[in-house]
Order: sequence, then structure tokens, then C-alpha cells
Amino acid sequence: MKLIRYGDPGREQIGVQLGDINYDVSAFGGDYNEAFFEDNGLARLDEFVKANADRLIPVPEGTRLGSPIARPSKILCIGLNYRDHAEETGAQIPTEPIIFMKSTTSLSGPYDDIIIPKNSTKTDWEVEFGIVIGKKATYVEESAAFDYVAGYVLHNDVSEREFQLERGGTWDKGKGCDTFAPIGPFLATKDEIEDINNIRLWLTVNGKTYQDGNTKNLIFSVPFIISYVSQFMTLLPGDVISTGTPAGVGLGFNPPIYLQPGDVVELGADGLGVSRQSVKAYQS
Amino acid sequence: MKLIRYGDPGREQIGVQLGDINYDVSAFGGDYNEAFFEDNGLARLDEFVKANADRLIPVPEGTRLGSPIARPSKILCIGLNYRDHAEETGAQIPTEPIIFMKSTTSLSGPYDDIIIPKNSTKTDWEVEFGIVIGKKATYVEESAAFDYVAGYVLHNDVSEREFQLERGGTWDKGKGCDTFAPIGPFLATKDEIEDINNIRLWLTVNGKTYQDGNTKNLIFSVPFIISYVSQFMTLLPGDVISTGTPAGVGLGFNPPIYLQPGDVVELGADGLGVSRQSVKAYQS
Repeated sequence: MKLIRYGDPGREQIGVQLGDINYDVSAFGGDYNEAFFEDNGLARLDEFVKANADRLIPVPEGTRLGSPIARPSKILCIGLNYRDHAEETGAQIPTEPIIFMKSTTSLSGPYDDIIIPKNSTKTDWEVEFGIVIGKKATYVEESAAFDYVAGYVLHNDVSEREFQLERGGTWDKGKGCDTFAPIGPFLATKDEIEDINNIRLWLTVNGKTYQDGNTKNLIFSVPFIISYVSQFMTLLPGDVISTGTPAGVGLGFNPPIYLQPGDVVELGADGLGVSRQSVKAYQS
Repeated sequence: MKLIRYGDPGREQIGVQLGDINYDVSAFGGDYNEAFFEDNGLARLDEFVKANADRLIPVPEGTRLGSPIARPSKILCIGLNYRDHAEETGAQIPTEPIIFMKSTTSLSGPYDDIIIPKNSTKTDWEVEFGIVIGKKATYVEESAAFDYVAGYVLHNDVSEREFQLERGGTWDKGKGCDTFAPIGPFLATKDEIEDINNIRLWLTVNGKTYQDGNTKNLIFSVPFIISYVSQFMTLLPGDVISTGTPAGVGLGFNPPIYLQPGDVVELGADGLGVSRQSVKAYQS
């Protein structure tokens, strides 16, 4: 199943994608949030969709898509989880996963604009394969990790490199700015993805390919990551863990290349669709 | 006004503290969450309390207190914001605020147990003065910062030093464990605190004083912090910014002193009450 949310920011309705068409399922009730995933929502939604298959109404074309999940309790990310990306940033290959958090206020829709923050000159891109948690997870064994997965999403982990790396302290200043987490276009449930260890991920800026990686090159695997993170904090249904970005970010070039107003970023991953963001300057 | 929440974890009811007595105000409706603060809840609650002053029913003695605010979108913290604490940890005095985030799943009540995580040997304490945001805040001027404050809370920023400092990456692994953010006993609204620049903060373990500081020694002031953080991310109503801890954490001793099962931590701040946590080992 492919879950989507559509409508104005903060007032999204829920839907599903069948074939290439988005259908409204707001009659199912609620939102794709913690309560939905916790309360066996995916199975109930599947039944609802089957029972109403011939009555579903398409979402009008041109309607904005929001993030396919409502604001979660947390968006966690794994840093430097592809060897080639760690090397391009000049960092050590990590011996255990690096965890950081993105402010959930950074969440945005897959085709929403990326807004360059005030005083930013180093806004960068990062295509990522994201895990959506389906069940409360504490001290999960790696062998049981998939039981805690609802599905997967495409994520652009937009990052301001000066804020992240040159302003002191942790990375949080450069990761959680508004519009810095375009997620979607849809949440693909587990069964939609044949092999999560062979997902091609790519990203272009103004049509030129900058990133072209594959999850087969992840240093730490999806089940290992879920088990690892759950040793340090409880994961709630709807939480996102983004698994890291392959080589080809702007920071990795010499000289670095950063996003400018007017740029168009397009990204995709096998089975997770394509998203596209236009870059704009902040205007108060 | 002093806001409290009481009852079983996840099912808290709202209340207010008048004199030394906690009263139920669940008839007011809702919870002390983003919607409450956003929708002028403090002013409406004040009217409700005045209109019902002679009808309010005390919360039964012995009832558990929860965090005085519902789970916010984020718990932000300012690192190394007291000179003496920066020095005791061997860190540089920061030239601009260090921001980090605590997972909101770490939120707990003021008298709840602190659970030492599995495989932890370095669980430490940090008494802090916390700001609760009252209004959506983006690029706030320092001079206007207090307009965005709902009130203040006492916070124990419990920290696992090995997870925080020795496991690679950011501090997040050691800051967001379950039970690592006891907040309360109450939220004191702005008008309750005469001078936020002269708040004594203290913390004892098993009756022995380890921390005894004052917000007059903050490196970065409350309005500066609010303005600063709002340059990097949008603050939502109900969000917490904890302003840092003074000297006297377990990490600062030679050899360091860490919490053990059976220990009792007590902490307080002028105008923000006293909280107390018993330390327990994790049991699955």
C-alpha cells in the first residue's frame, strides 16, 4: 500500500495511491500519526480500501501533497552511513552509527519549496532512504527489527553546512530549519519493497545528477540501525529514521556547491517515487 | 498561575496549584499542549479558575504528578551555559550557544523514577531552568523574546556520559533515554517569577548538595537564547528550552560520581518548586 496526505499545510487529508492515482480516504478517519500506526491502522486501512475500492474518489489533480506521515515525535538520522559520503566530507568512517535529530518543525511536503534560511550561504542536499516505525520499540533485537517497521519513505535531509559544522556544538542548528525535511511523495508499506538492500537513490540539481547511490552500500543495515537506536531511546509509531546519504552532496565538491534561489532539486529512490523542490530565499 | 498535570502516565488530567494545594481543572478541557498555548489558553484558564474558585476540587493526596506540559514538539537544551560547568567538564567556554535536543520520549514527571538504561554505568544529573514557549517563534528579536514565553519549569537534564561523549557523533545518544527529562512539579507562568536573572538552582543526591548555582551566572541570557534558537528553527507553543546546568555534575568530580540504583536525587529552583527522583535499574 502507498499512503499519501494531501491538502494545505497543517490541514492535510489522508489518501492512498493506487496505480498512479491518488485517492481520498478521509472517510477512514484520523491521520497517519502515532495513534494510527499504534492501533493497527495499516491493516484496517487495507481492509477499508478493499471494501471501498469502487467508491474511492481521486484527489483533484494539482492538489498539494504533504508529508505522507503526520508530524512524528521525532525524526532521527544516521550520519555518515555510506563510506563514499564519509570520505567526501573528510570524516572518519564511523565504528558505530552516528545519531542526530532533525526538529520535527522541518517536516514538509515532497513538492514544497526549500526555503534558504536567513543568513544562510551553505544550504545543501542529501537524498536518503527513510524508515517509518510502526510499533513502539525499546531494546529491539536486530533479528526482530522488521516487526517494528511500518514502511519506507524518500527523504531529502536538507542541511545548512555552516550552521551544522561551523557554529559550535552539535549538528542540530543546520538540520532542523523549516522546510529542511521534505518527505514523500508516499509511504510505501514494507510489502511494497522487494529488497531494501538494493535500492538505488539519486538526486539532481537543475537536471544535473549529483548523487547516485544504492542502499547496498550502507555501512550499518536497516535492522541493525533500528536495534541500535532503540538502545538509547524509545521509538514511537510514526517516528522516522533516515538512514544516511551517499556521496555527491554539495559540501563534497571543491569548491563546494550550495543551493541558490531558483534551483530545482529532484530526487528519487526505487519503489519510493520521486520528489522535487524549488529553492527560494527566505522572505519575512 | 501554576499549572500541574496529574494521574497515570499518558492519561494525565490538568490542574492548577493554588497555595500549596493542587486542584483539578479538567472541566476546562483539553491538555497543556501546543493547541492550549497557541489558543490563548493561559488567559482563558486564568478566567476559568477565577470564575470557579470556590468550586475547584483538590487532587487527592498521593496522586502522581506528570510533567506540567504535554509532550511538546521538541525539548531543546543549551549546552555549557554556565562558565563553572564548562570548566569542570574540560570544555571550551562557548562563543555562541550550543544547541542540542532531547528526545521527547524522555519526558517524565517530577517524582517519577529515573531508570538507568541497560548497559549504562555513567548516568548523571543536571539541574536546569527551563523556558516554555507560548507562541510560535521564528527569527525573534531579543527585545521581543519575552512575548514568546509562557512560563518556566524546573528540569533535571539527566545525561548518560558514556552514551553522550564516548559512542561517536552528537550528544543525542546520552540525552534522550526514557525518564531522562523529569519536568515540574509545575509550570510557573511568567508573572510568577520576579527576576529570572536571579534564580538559585540546587541539586542533592542522597541529601548531599552537589549543585548550587544561580541563573545570574548564565553565559547566554534567556531572551538571547530564545532569539538565537529561533534563527535555526521554528519554536512551537509548548516547546521547552532548557538553559543549561551549573557546576557540580557527577562528570566533574575526580573520579566521577554517577547515579546508582537506590539513590535519591532532589532538586529545586526559586519559584519553580522541588522535584525528587528515585534511581532504579532498568528491568525488562
